[in-house]
Amino acid sequence: MVQSEIPNIIISRLPVYLRALRHMQGQGKQTTNSQELGEQVGVSAAQIRKDVSQFGEFGKQGTGYDIAFLVKKLSEILHIDRVWDLAVIGMGDMGHAIARYQGFADRGFRVAMLFDADPAKIGTRLGSFVIRDAAEMIPAIKQAGIQIAMLCVPASTAQAVTNQLVQAGVKAILNYSPINLSVPDGVRVQYLDPSVGLQRMTYYL
Amino acid sequence: MVQSEIPNIIISRLPVYLRALRHMQGQGKQTTNSQELGEQVGVSAAQIRKDVSQFGEFGKQGTGYDIAFLVKKLSEILHIDRVWDLAVIGMGDMGHAIARYQGFADRGFRVAMLFDADPAKIGTRLGSFVIRDAAEMIPAIKQAGIQIAMLCVPASTAQAVTNQLVQAGVKAILNYSPINLSVPDGVRVQYLDPSVGLQRMTYYL
Repeated sequence: MVQSEIPNIIISRLPVYLRALRHMQGQGKQTTNSQELGEQVGVSAAQIRKDVSQFGEFGKQGTGYDIAFLVKKLSEILHIDRVWDLAVIGMGDMGHAIARYQGFADRGFRVAMLFDADPAKIGTRLGSFVIRDAAEMIPAIKQAGIQIAMLCVPASTAQAVTNQLVQAGVKAILNYSPINLSVPDGVRVQYLDPSVGLQRMTYYL
Repeated sequence: MVQSEIPNIIISRLPVYLRALRHMQGQGKQTTNSQELGEQVGVSAAQIRKDVSQFGEFGKQGTGYDIAFLVKKLSEILHIDRVWDLAVIGMGDMGHAIARYQGFADRGFRVAMLFDADPAKIGTRLGSFVIRDAAEMIPAIKQAGIQIAMLCVPASTAQAVTNQLVQAGVKAILNYSPINLSVPDGVRVQYLDPSVGLQRMTYYL
């Protein structure tokens, strides 16, 4: 199986399936099927079956999916059967919220470093971290081999900081700034854009 | 055209197209095509054409899409050719960040009310707002006719607050808490889940 053959749109749905499956696990369920999972995530049963079958034969006709097995397989596919270190850039409200976010545990991620350019913030503690000087960002991220950054800086500096992150070897950026970022091939950006989330609902209002 | 016939998955892509189109507008572009737009958003050109054609004939063979026209049409389809008031619940780090977020302007939304249950926060100012008592949330939201809430409370209280929002007449919830919410039919939830955004990228690392 060549990874690049799987369309991006399919990959983008897998984490949503995974979250729903883990929610079912939390409720004590052991099996599910494409119909039930589809209703949870707003995707057709046929689409779920098609998406999942890209990676192998994970379900059984009639009995559906073993939830624990599918969780394990999806975690392997998404490469979160390990823990990835995150660098958080920009310690304003959003950066603080991310640094304290309780939702990373068991989902493949761990906050490892915090950076800010403000002398008043550099060197101060936040939980178990000391906020580091953004001027040291490139060597620090390089040395730690961190590949994932959460960008929480103002829109005005987001592109400049992104360029530095790329220089530091970062390959994946979760962007909280309300602007589109330009990155070279091989670097990915995901946008956590509240307006997009809201616009997905106003259609129905 | 019956709205409910358009699959949810298509609706969910439209805000992403819209953001990319507005980005192109910001760069001074006047026309685009399904190929170029698809590359920007990671969707095939055929899918873009199919999605957009659900709503009418917006492009021309050979010349593609007029960006301003498509922006206008998508905004109408998504019902953001007006401004929606938002209630923000929970004034921790995330609530603060949302209340000050600069990305809502011109995208169809305006923060209108802030609530918290903490007596130390109630009555304090944040920008042009006074943080209101969460105990007044149901009548205040009802009276203002607000249909959209941003949920920024801890996971432990998220479901209880959601139940109150539903009682208050809220129909759309953007959830920042790292848990799945149960809501009755007719109420929609979107999850702004950083782990999902990150997992969409780790596949490629």
